[in-house]
Amino acid sequence: MKSKVFPYPVKRIGIIGGGQLGKMTAQAAKQMGFYVTVLDPTPHCPAAHLADAQIVGELYDATTLTALAQVSEVLTYDVEHIDVQTLKKLAQAGHVISPSPELLEIIQDKFLQKQQLRKYGIPVPQFAAFEQVTPEHLAQFGFPVVQKARFGGYDGKGVVVLKNQADLEQILPGPSILEQFIPIEKELAIIIARTATGETACYPIVEMRFDDNANICQAVIAPAPIDNAIAEQARQVALQAIESLQGVGIFGVEMFLTATGQILVNEIAPRPHNSGHYTIEACMTSQFEQLIRVISGLPLGMTTLLRPVVMFNLLGEKGYHGAPIIEGLADALAIPGLSFHFYDKKSTHPLRKMGHITILDDNLDNAMTKLRQAKMVLKIIGAEQDA
Amino acid sequence: MKSKVFPYPVKRIGIIGGGQLGKMTAQAAKQMGFYVTVLDPTPHCPAAHLADAQIVGELYDATTLTALAQVSEVLTYDVEHIDVQTLKKLAQAGHVISPSPELLEIIQDKFLQKQQLRKYGIPVPQFAAFEQVTPEHLAQFGFPVVQKARFGGYDGKGVVVLKNQADLEQILPGPSILEQFIPIEKELAIIIARTATGETACYPIVEMRFDDNANICQAVIAPAPIDNAIAEQARQVALQAIESLQGVGIFGVEMFLTATGQILVNEIAPRPHNSGHYTIEACMTSQFEQLIRVISGLPLGMTTLLRPVVMFNLLGEKGYHGAPIIEGLADALAIPGLSFHFYDKKSTHPLRKMGHITILDDNLDNAMTKLRQAKMVLKIIGAEQDA
Repeated sequence: MKSKVFPYPVKRIGIIGGGQLGKMTAQAAKQMGFYVTVLDPTPHCPAAHLADAQIVGELYDATTLTALAQVSEVLTYDVEHIDVQTLKKLAQAGHVISPSPELLEIIQDKFLQKQQLRKYGIPVPQFAAFEQVTPEHLAQFGFPVVQKARFGGYDGKGVVVLKNQADLEQILPGPSILEQFIPIEKELAIIIARTATGETACYPIVEMRFDDNANICQAVIAPAPIDNAIAEQARQVALQAIESLQGVGIFGVEMFLTATGQILVNEIAPRPHNSGHYTIEACMTSQFEQLIRVISGLPLGMTTLLRPVVMFNLLGEKGYHGAPIIEGLADALAIPGLSFHFYDKKSTHPLRKMGHITILDDNLDNAMTKLRQAKMVLKIIGAEQDA
Repeated sequence: MKSKVFPYPVKRIGIIGGGQLGKMTAQAAKQMGFYVTVLDPTPHCPAAHLADAQIVGELYDATTLTALAQVSEVLTYDVEHIDVQTLKKLAQAGHVISPSPELLEIIQDKFLQKQQLRKYGIPVPQFAAFEQVTPEHLAQFGFPVVQKARFGGYDGKGVVVLKNQADLEQILPGPSILEQFIPIEKELAIIIARTATGETACYPIVEMRFDDNANICQAVIAPAPIDNAIAEQARQVALQAIESLQGVGIFGVEMFLTATGQILVNEIAPRPHNSGHYTIEACMTSQFEQLIRVISGLPLGMTTLLRPVVMFNLLGEKGYHGAPIIEGLADALAIPGLSFHFYDKKSTHPLRKMGHITILDDNLDNAMTKLRQAKMVLKIIGAEQDA
């Protein structure tokens, strides 16, 4: 039963984590007249100045999480690494948290996540979990093999590809999964919204392109330049994955398109996702507004793509630290159809996500050409240069 | 000579006035990594929580204007009613203010504004200025005639249409202009950006539809449903008007399309304009981002319309005051392509601009049908009902 009447502010929303995802979520919420509080350990975090208030505190601290819940009607998060046991207690005490702590707990553990997907028949690479990977385990799997820490990885951290015996010294310590190395044609992704009443909205299938050295997503192309049939297959697989989790919120589903034309789910993010930043300029409803709608019990917005688009992450240049400096901004903004986002992070370091650009063009090839131009001129360096 | 390098924050921007225009300007600036301070007499004004800081102070106070200038590299404004003499002194002292105080001074005075336009051959209705309009002056003009206060009007305030001798008691006191009453076919408008180096960017010509009773713009339709030739003529007239003012910034140019097919300039706003709110969702670059680009010396963005669109102002319902209450939000957001903006004003009163909606649709007729649906369900009422 939906309330017909919203006394201002529409809702009081609490966001756990105040990075760039929290910032863009806050921006969407503030546009629509919501009251936003963010919880983040860093004072003046990216989301802080777009929110009404920040609670400065750790995401594994029951006291600060409870404080956020007390000033918010609905809680959501922009990061997975949160004290989920406290969230469960808060949910039991009647606080609304979307996506649910139970879902977050599954997602936080790469093993549980993959197990859940496999249980529901979602295609995933072969995997097995280990308390501590040994050379014998590797021998069982054969090379090459991918090792992923069960907990705490992000942006390529906590993942290694072991090619042969010589790589044994790179084995990650602690609980992890070994995963079949998949020869991939492309990495695909999709943003899916799902409401408490089970309605879903799918954004287009996009292609993610990675930095060769850092295993960090650099570019996102929408729509993915693939056959419609493959896109439809990927959409169905991703949708099944979210349905199987009974997820309520916004989800980024990363997938592999294998060399043999198969779709495998790689990983699910239970929050707005880097592969969906393009939706701000290029879609009828951004992934951030969609999240606000879902967690507030409001109807889903249209996901229509208004123009083909490429998104490119602005990573901190190697060799620099300290206060960020933007090089080539005027030249970049002279490129027709280019939008610039900067995340208000007070310092840069190599490969840190400092901002992104979005380029809309009627023609995706033209957009790619413009992206090559932009990459040549636009750099995020830092006040401190490494020796 | 453009700087190639921007140490973060990109620029420190000061916005004089923190209403909804300041709010949406701050939002665009924060997205791009600018530091924003707003000056507004109302604590927690709409722009306050999207800016980095607010100076609470009057817009006719030299001290507070100077304080804003001191923490900002560039100043702009979201309202015309500012102490322009202080702005002139600040500009002379080297502060960058866009649009210039000299231009603002012309715009503030409806007589000077019209005189300037007429001097440059821009078509305007016939007019004359008076220290105090008398029945004799009206007789000279003949009925009907429009009287406009020279200073301080907005949203239909400071304007009366005098139809005959019986309306004499409605004559506004103080300095005003009398203006020929124009039988109009449509009211048109355009947003134009102009840089310090004279580059310009025009948005589409739109139609403004007015509330019959309140003389306040209610709906904006883009593109205006008029012949291309008329749209082109309107674009040229508006562009000449901005060129004649040598304006640097974002300008809303309101025009009449007369019953005889003539274009006349009605009024110019030296700031983002209500008729350009649709650009947030429907154009490649919003009028607010465009303003930030212009005043920072950055290149202009593309103004391409991505979809036909209607914008509708959410005015405070008659009969209500106090804390705003949004009625029918869920039903409105269920309309495909509808976006909702709420301005964070802490109280409503009849006809106050509380928010707006934007409806994108491939087909303008469909968008208008959806608007009729939205108008039926979505109302901004208040906690206090009039007796």
